[in-house]
Amino acid sequence: MGTTQLESVQEPKYWHLKTVLSEALDSDFAVGEILPNERDLAARFGVARATLRQALEQLELEGRLQRRRGVGTTVAPPRVGVAVSTAPHEWAGDVGGEAWQPVDSTVAKAPAPIAATLGTDPAEPVHVVRRIRETQGQVVAAELVYVPGSSVPDLSAIEASGPVRARAVLRELHRLGLQGQDRSVELGSARADDAKELDRLPGAPVLVVTTRYLTAVGTAAVSVATYRADTCRLTFGDSGALEISHDDQPERQAS
Amino acid sequence: MGTTQLESVQEPKYWHLKTVLSEALDSDFAVGEILPNERDLAARFGVARATLRQALEQLELEGRLQRRRGVGTTVAPPRVGVAVSTAPHEWAGDVGGEAWQPVDSTVAKAPAPIAATLGTDPAEPVHVVRRIRETQGQVVAAELVYVPGSSVPDLSAIEASGPVRARAVLRELHRLGLQGQDRSVELGSARADDAKELDRLPGAPVLVVTTRYLTAVGTAAVSVATYRADTCRLTFGDSGALEISHDDQPERQAS
Repeated sequence: MGTTQLESVQEPKYWHLKTVLSEALDSDFAVGEILPNERDLAARFGVARATLRQALEQLELEGRLQRRRGVGTTVAPPRVGVAVSTAPHEWAGDVGGEAWQPVDSTVAKAPAPIAATLGTDPAEPVHVVRRIRETQGQVVAAELVYVPGSSVPDLSAIEASGPVRARAVLRELHRLGLQGQDRSVELGSARADDAKELDRLPGAPVLVVTTRYLTAVGTAAVSVATYRADTCRLTFGDSGALEISHDDQPERQAS
Repeated sequence: MGTTQLESVQEPKYWHLKTVLSEALDSDFAVGEILPNERDLAARFGVARATLRQALEQLELEGRLQRRRGVGTTVAPPRVGVAVSTAPHEWAGDVGGEAWQPVDSTVAKAPAPIAATLGTDPAEPVHVVRRIRETQGQVVAAELVYVPGSSVPDLSAIEASGPVRARAVLRELHRLGLQGQDRSVELGSARADDAKELDRLPGAPVLVVTTRYLTAVGTAAVSVATYRADTCRLTFGDSGALEISHDDQPERQAS
């Protein structure tokens, strides 16, 4: 356990190729540049295409490459830091703000685990608010906020639809007086509807942030936000705007 | 943007297979059970092996399946919630606690972006403390904590090695009086040394948590922790032990 010598660890062939490719990206390619096709790349590095593909997948996981529909594989810009707020007063009060754009609100049954967290009957429809989050002109996250009718008792009078209705649900929820929240972050794959809004293919790796919004008496709402794992770095700070300014990759020497 | 109808989204073939497989996992397999080999599975579902492999990869991303060296593909248990503390006083003071086990401490150059965050000369060696974190008897994370000599001025007198030295470095760092921290979470792939400690293959998807430890005058230390993305769900709470109790998957009906 105490030794961390690389020599003692068996490295698959694609792992070595990944390191070589990573250096080539630094020295021979610019951000946004389209990579040669797989056949040419495999020939250039003298490897089988299956090996090449594994190495490319690794680099995509690490945020070095992006696969874009209709474009091909390009060299990715550094990931964008996206602040995941820990201040409960900011979220629903900020519905007209820059971070989240309400899209619509429907009434539907919540998935069973979410109904269990909300303490509602799984057969009982809840409000489902869809929001998207843009950063630097790009959609970085799609979110569903599940709000039981009991959390927004005055909402039934509202006849609006689309973003107007979404805002109304969030405003009513905010009026409830949220006292705290907890969150989890895990790896997931984009559902088809999220993938479309994120401009990704279904199944693309995403960071799933599940937030429980709490009042004095229990859970008022649950949101499930899906962040693009290729372009985003989620930031959590207790020191305001401070943010880690590097990309967590080991040092790469330009040759 | 406003419509989220599944019908309007093009779904790849493996995506449908993934849904079918997911239902089969619920109805026909128990947690820990080994799946049939790829050839048999492909025949059972009437698909090409390439399609099957893509679907299996999706299910692995979502934490439903685990690939284990020398065992094969097994049905994964629900992910374990691992609390990522936001209380600065807990981290270094808790070096002997359950969460993190110090392994060793060496002196080495920090990667350039980390040196930049620390405000140290990239050529200047820093203390590099390695810790591992166990939850429910399983290693869930491996971490390197980079500590410049200036943050632990009294350390030079210590001659110990291994965990004893690691504890000494963290204890000295704690004495400095940390005032806050900020964090980022992003997707990465396991380096060979981390992969070994996490019992994974190099390149396995991991959640990389980078933490900056702050004093009144600047950054005292930076840690880079690598959590198994297959088995872990990182939890962030401002409400103590509260934790989201579901697995974020859409409801699955047992057939």
